[in-house]
Order: sequence, then C-alpha cells, then structure tokens
Amino acid sequence: MYMGEKLDVLRLGYRRGRDPRITTHLALVARAMGADGFFLAGDTDNEMFENLNSVSDRFGGSLETNHVSGMSYVKNHVKNGGVAVHLTMYGEPFRKAIPKIRRDRPVLIVVGGAKVPGDIYKICQHNVAVGNQPHSEVAALALFMEAWFGDSASERKFDDARLIIEGTNNGKLVRDMSDN
Amino acid sequence: MYMGEKLDVLRLGYRRGRDPRITTHLALVARAMGADGFFLAGDTDNEMFENLNSVSDRFGGSLETNHVSGMSYVKNHVKNGGVAVHLTMYGEPFRKAIPKIRRDRPVLIVVGGAKVPGDIYKICQHNVAVGNQPHSEVAALALFMEAWFGDSASERKFDDARLIIEGTNNGKLVRDMSDN
Repeated sequence: MYMGEKLDVLRLGYRRGRDPRITTHLALVARAMGADGFFLAGDTDNEMFENLNSVSDRFGGSLETNHVSGMSYVKNHVKNGGVAVHLTMYGEPFRKAIPKIRRDRPVLIVVGGAKVPGDIYKICQHNVAVGNQPHSEVAALALFMEAWFGDSASERKFDDARLIIEGTNNGKLVRDMSDN
Repeated sequence: MYMGEKLDVLRLGYRRGRDPRITTHLALVARAMGADGFFLAGDTDNEMFENLNSVSDRFGGSLETNHVSGMSYVKNHVKNGGVAVHLTMYGEPFRKAIPKIRRDRPVLIVVGGAKVPGDIYKICQHNVAVGNQPHSEVAALALFMEAWFGDSASERKFDDARLIIEGTNNGKLVRDMSDN
C-alpha cells in the first residue's frame, strides 16, 4: 500500500442538531481507512471529537480532530500547494479521476453538507463521483479511500491498539492488550 | 460482472425515532449498488419507503421495499435454502469470506441494529467483517457489495432512469430523459 502524503477529511456545513450520526460514521470511516485527520466546518461538536478520541484510545492510531473555517480552509489548503478532492455525485467517476490526482502533496477530501456554496467545485482541483446515483457520503468516502489506498485500507490494523478484534465466522475474539 | 441470484438487504432492529438517516443511506447504497430489495425489521416507516421509491422513479431500477419480521424472516430464508450473510465487525474478513459464499442461491445481507439477539450469529451461515475496526454499517455494506459484484457495482447505471447524471470535473450534466 502506498501511503503518500498526509490525507485529511473535511466535512463542510455540519449541523449539530441534524447530522451527528452520519458525521460520526464519516469520521469513523476516515479513521478506520487511514486518514490522518478529520475536520469539521459548520457547528462545533467537542462531544463528537471526544468520542472519536476514545475510539482511537481503544483501537489504536491517532486521528487528528479539528474545527476549521470551511471554504477559506479549503482555499488556503490549495493556495499552500495541497490537493483538494471534492466528493460529489456530480463529479468525474472516481476510478477515472484517481490516477490524475497527485500523491506527492497533502490531500484534503472534502465532503459536502448543508448549504455548501457552488464555489467549492471551482476551489477544489478535483470533483469526484463515487457513482452517479444518489446514495451516501459515508459509502462514497469508504469506496474512494479503498480505491485510493488499495484494497487493504478497509482491513487496516493499528499498531498501538489496546483492543484488537479478530473476527471469525463462529464467534469473536477480542484481545485486550492492556492485560499483558 | 456476475449477477447471481437475487440479493436483498435487511436492516434489523430499526428505530424510527433514531435511525432514519443512517437507514436511508443504507437503503440508497443497497439500491445504487444493485440490490433487488431493501427490508426493514423493527419499526415500520412507510415514509422512508416512499422516498426510496421516488428515487427509483427518477434514477431508475426497482428496489423492492418491505417490512419483515426480523429473526424469523432470516430463519425462514435459510430454511428455504437461501444464504444469509451477517455484516458485523466481529466476523471473518470479507475478502476471505466472499469466495466461500455460494452464489447460486438467493442472498440476504443482514445488517444489525439495536438489540439484535446473539442468535443471529448462528442463524446466518456467514458472519462477515469489513474491517475489524468500528466504523459504519453504511460503509461496510458498500465495500461488501463492491467486492461481491465487482468494481463496477458503484458505477452502475439503470436502464429505465428518467434522470441520468453524467459527472465531470468541471460541472454536472443532468439528462432529463422525460424531455425526449
């Protein structure tokens, strides 16, 4: 698996009253599949970040969590030489797009939300669709990251995990490393 | 792409007050990636089914939607010769499991929910994990279906669509077939 530069995921237009479960799923997918950071624009939600940190405490890895400014964050990222990839059902098919995305720069995956300005299509260098059907930003992020990192992204292990699940067809094995 | 027999997705333990958005995402992923049916056990939610039908009206295909009984539905499916695949973070890694799952029988993908009895692990012939990290049933379903149907599952087209999105990097093209 080629890791490349830093990869972060940004959720735009977060609404604490409406989106916490979907957005938590987005963040957990980002973590599980190897993102370095998960950033929220829109409402703040420290409780969600605490939950995410507690997952990393138990299952390993370290997901950076931050509240950021949204559009101006994306603009600065691009201005500083970063690559911004906007996931949208109106973008270029992802398998066609991925080979065109440079991997030698920090990558920001931008996931839309409520009231995202149309400018986002121009600010991001890549507008990428995971299927041109309406489905789910959670699924889109997972399929994009699997294609970006290679098949093993969804079966990633974290070295500093305290709990390790070894699943089988007949029952789970949970290793609690802190027993050692 | 090998289509095989009928493939349905069942969400167990649905709670209308808590789960509608995540479950709608699950259903939309099921539809977009080629499931024949999406079934709910737990609370009924005809409004969700109407929304799903309206997506199929516009974007094509026909997703069967049904309220079913839950555990006894799964039991009957297996008793009648069907294959039941339970998605769980405690299962066997999906890429190892998929070659063992027979494709000549109707497949039911079972997605857990609140208060799912532990018996589900015994009733289903396959307990399959998409990563042994906590993340999202929406992502797990998408990655499983992509691996099951082959890479084109996420870029599926539906012949009888009224709206067809042709995404590009620079702007969307929406074809309204009913204009013809």
